[in-house]
Amino acid sequence: MAPEILTPARILEATEDVLRRFGPAKATVVDVARALGVSHGSVYRHFGSKAALREAVTDRWLGQTHTELSAIAEGDAPAGVRLREWLAGLFAAKRRKAGGDPELFATYMVLAGENSGTVERHIETMIGQLAGIVEEGVRDGEFVSDDPVVTARALWDATGRFHDPAYAEEWSRPDIDGAFEAVCALLVRGLRAP
Amino acid sequence: MAPEILTPARILEATEDVLRRFGPAKATVVDVARALGVSHGSVYRHFGSKAALREAVTDRWLGQTHTELSAIAEGDAPAGVRLREWLAGLFAAKRRKAGGDPELFATYMVLAGENSGTVERHIETMIGQLAGIVEEGVRDGEFVSDDPVVTARALWDATGRFHDPAYAEEWSRPDIDGAFEAVCALLVRGLRAP
Repeated sequence: MAPEILTPARILEATEDVLRRFGPAKATVVDVARALGVSHGSVYRHFGSKAALREAVTDRWLGQTHTELSAIAEGDAPAGVRLREWLAGLFAAKRRKAGGDPELFATYMVLAGENSGTVERHIETMIGQLAGIVEEGVRDGEFVSDDPVVTARALWDATGRFHDPAYAEEWSRPDIDGAFEAVCALLVRGLRAP
Repeated sequence: MAPEILTPARILEATEDVLRRFGPAKATVVDVARALGVSHGSVYRHFGSKAALREAVTDRWLGQTHTELSAIAEGDAPAGVRLREWLAGLFAAKRRKAGGDPELFATYMVLAGENSGTVERHIETMIGQLAGIVEEGVRDGEFVSDDPVVTARALWDATGRFHDPAYAEEWSRPDIDGAFEAVCALLVRGLRAP
C-alpha cells in the first residue's frame, strides 16, 4: 500500500475511529498512531498533546453542522423562511447524530464536557449565523429587533430543547415535531414587523 | 413534651429534614420515625412504603411553586403582564431553591429522577396555569392562539433554560437576567394580536 501523506484531517478521522472502538476513557495517542501505521511522534508533530488532539476532534465534530447551516443562513429566501429552515436543519443534524450512532454521540458528550471553551466557540458561531439572518430580516423590513445579536441569543436559548444534547432522549418522542413547530411559530411571529 | 398528632404534613416535613441530613441514598423510614419519636409502623400507616413516602415528599417540593404561581395566574393584570410575572416568578422560585440550599436541591434532583410520573404531573399543572393565562389573553383580544394548550407548552419549552434544573449552574451567571428578558420579550410579542 502506498504511504499516504499524514494530514491533520487523516489523524482526526483515525481519532474518531479509535474513540468509537475504545471509548473516551481508554483511547490513547498510541492507539491513533497504530491505526494510522505511524509513530506516535508523527501524530504529536500535528497535535502537541493528547488534550490538543481531543480538542481538535471535538471541534471537527461540532463544526460539521456549521457548513450545512451556513448554506441555509446565506440563502436567498425571506428571513422568516430561512430562520425556520435553519432551526429545523440544526434540530435534524442533532437528532441524526444522537440517534444514528448513540455510542459515538455519548463519546462526544464526554469530550464536549472536557472542552467547554470549544463548545462556547461553537455556540458563538451558531448565534452569529442566527444574528445574520435576523439582521437581514430587519434590513428587509420583515423583522423587528433592537439588537440582532441579543435576539439571536434569545432564539438559541428558546430552542434549546431541540438542540441541547441534554434533551437528546426526548428527540424520539412522537410529539416532539409538533412541539418544535409550536416554538418556531411563536418565535418567528415574535420577530415579525407589525 | 405534649405529643402532637402525627399528620402527613409533619411526616413530610421530617422526611425532608432526614433527607437533608443523611442524603437520598441513606435516608430510611426508620430515620424519619426516629426523628418524629414514633414507630416506623405509624409512618407506614400514612405512607405505605418508602417509595410512596419519597414520592409524596417530591410532590410536596414541586407543589410549593404551584400556589405561588397560581396567585399570579389568577390575578387581574392584562395577560401579557401576568405571563411575564408568572415566568419571572417561576425562574425566581427555581433559582431560590437551587442557590439557597444546593445540597437539598441536589437531593430533590435524585428524587425527581426516581419519580418521573410526579414530575410529569407537575409540568402538566404548570402548563395548565400558562394555558389559563393564554386563554384569557385570547378572550380579551390581547393574544392570538389557535390552541392555548399547545401555545402554553411552547412557552414552557421555550423557557426551559430558566426553569429546567439541568441549567441550574447557569442561573448565577451575570448575563442570565438579560437572556431571560430577551426570551420573554420575544415570546410575549409572538403572542400579541396584530
